[in-house]
Amino acid sequence: MSPSYPEHLRQEVERYLEGMTFSEEPLTAGLEEAMRYSLLAGGKRIRPVLSLATARAVGMEQRDVLPLAGAIELIHTYSLIHDDLPAMDDDELRRGQPTCHVKFGEGVAILAGDGLYAEAFRHLLTHQRSDPERVLAAAAELAAATGVNGMVGGQYADISAPAPDGAAALRRLHELKTGRLIGASVLCVLLLTWNDDAPETAPFRRFAAELGVLFQIVDDILDVTGTDLALGKPQGSDERHGKRTYVSEFGIDRARELAAESHRTARAALAEVAGATGELEDITDFIYTRTS
Amino acid sequence: MSPSYPEHLRQEVERYLEGMTFSEEPLTAGLEEAMRYSLLAGGKRIRPVLSLATARAVGMEQRDVLPLAGAIELIHTYSLIHDDLPAMDDDELRRGQPTCHVKFGEGVAILAGDGLYAEAFRHLLTHQRSDPERVLAAAAELAAATGVNGMVGGQYADISAPAPDGAAALRRLHELKTGRLIGASVLCVLLLTWNDDAPETAPFRRFAAELGVLFQIVDDILDVTGTDLALGKPQGSDERHGKRTYVSEFGIDRARELAAESHRTARAALAEVAGATGELEDITDFIYTRTS
Repeated sequence: MSPSYPEHLRQEVERYLEGMTFSEEPLTAGLEEAMRYSLLAGGKRIRPVLSLATARAVGMEQRDVLPLAGAIELIHTYSLIHDDLPAMDDDELRRGQPTCHVKFGEGVAILAGDGLYAEAFRHLLTHQRSDPERVLAAAAELAAATGVNGMVGGQYADISAPAPDGAAALRRLHELKTGRLIGASVLCVLLLTWNDDAPETAPFRRFAAELGVLFQIVDDILDVTGTDLALGKPQGSDERHGKRTYVSEFGIDRARELAAESHRTARAALAEVAGATGELEDITDFIYTRTS
Repeated sequence: MSPSYPEHLRQEVERYLEGMTFSEEPLTAGLEEAMRYSLLAGGKRIRPVLSLATARAVGMEQRDVLPLAGAIELIHTYSLIHDDLPAMDDDELRRGQPTCHVKFGEGVAILAGDGLYAEAFRHLLTHQRSDPERVLAAAAELAAATGVNGMVGGQYADISAPAPDGAAALRRLHELKTGRLIGASVLCVLLLTWNDDAPETAPFRRFAAELGVLFQIVDDILDVTGTDLALGKPQGSDERHGKRTYVSEFGIDRARELAAESHRTARAALAEVAGATGELEDITDFIYTRTS
């Protein structure tokens, strides 16, 4: 992990996730085990760390957004479990470990994803403190970012044939599939504080949108240049799945240029934010330079 | 359909569901088609009709709870799509039509379910009018009723081997799998009006819990005594799947007695409610006497 990544925030998120339990019901102990297996499989926790870094930038106590941050990581974990299913990407390894359906069976994996999504909303709606109207706005944004106009819609576009044609459709697919949840990790924190149309949110919105693009371009480059060991999954899986990526669309050299442009745009948006953006800058640099 | 069922409410729900759209994005048109295929496949709409009938009983305008009622039917539809998957119950017919995965493929069906759940929360959190604190409470109840301590947990218990042993575990399984969402169709409406601990809610709570039990006992009886045509799915599927039911546990005669007892208990709880409970009584009688 890059030395500049805000490791202290990752550790705070990790502790919070470890403390999350979903049921004391013996009937569902096996389901909880599968959910926690995938939830606690490590990872950089980029989305919840982004939420904590955003809280700092808007002057909130970071621990006050942990319920939102935890909910976002639950949702990210759910999306990985469902994306890995045989009917989707059919991946057997994730972060170097057997995927949820390999370990627990397909039916349990589907339900582990379903359960994580439900528990994310239950947790957010029950534990996130703020003006109720602001919590509602944040939760509505999270639902929108993960629904048909967001993560689930993007995954549909990704697995459906024919693959969308052209650079604009490719960008839109990734905006839905990964960009909106990354963006929501920033936007939902803003919504806990400000109205949707508050002028303070404008540079954050540009930053959040660009960060999603940057993340995806780098992801596509790493799928070609990374190693199995660093990625924790087989390198080259995009190509084997016949997926359109920034690399397949533009070639590796142009993809690297696009990543550099995207990084500059994201940093320029951050420079317009009035608050303490040091951690957000570090995360942006990390996403640009990461090797896994 | 029984003549006493509140058909006017079912029609109002049906119109509302037909008007729901999720995206104008060309990339996700196929996903929306799969979602609407399952959502608009008919059915009695018992859960949203219950919500409208509860609104009448607590003195609310029925149309004012349509966003909640619609969200609940989206969630019910999602649960049917996922339950029918090959990795779960592997059912090919639902309401006499090919199930979602048979029609659209397994990957799309998983995502159609995921999308319906996300859109349910987006819709509820965006469109349900009430004091924001009350909307939050209703949405939190809906998430809890459909998570690990509710619908998803119950489905896990239902597909996991070994099947839970004994009448208490059987009752608990069904309370989770079907009872809590049926209960939430009543409770979430109460939560839009009253605090969780308001004394007015007590008889409603007893009614809602018992109605879920009644629904399941009758469901188990119909799986043995119904016809494929009336059920819209193959009769006897519980037995073929080796599921424990009220019939397998107690025999058909005792199951009928339990249904009669449950019906009396539910009606007795309703009799203690101060408001206009005529429609709730009709729904209760319908659930008891239905033949499909």
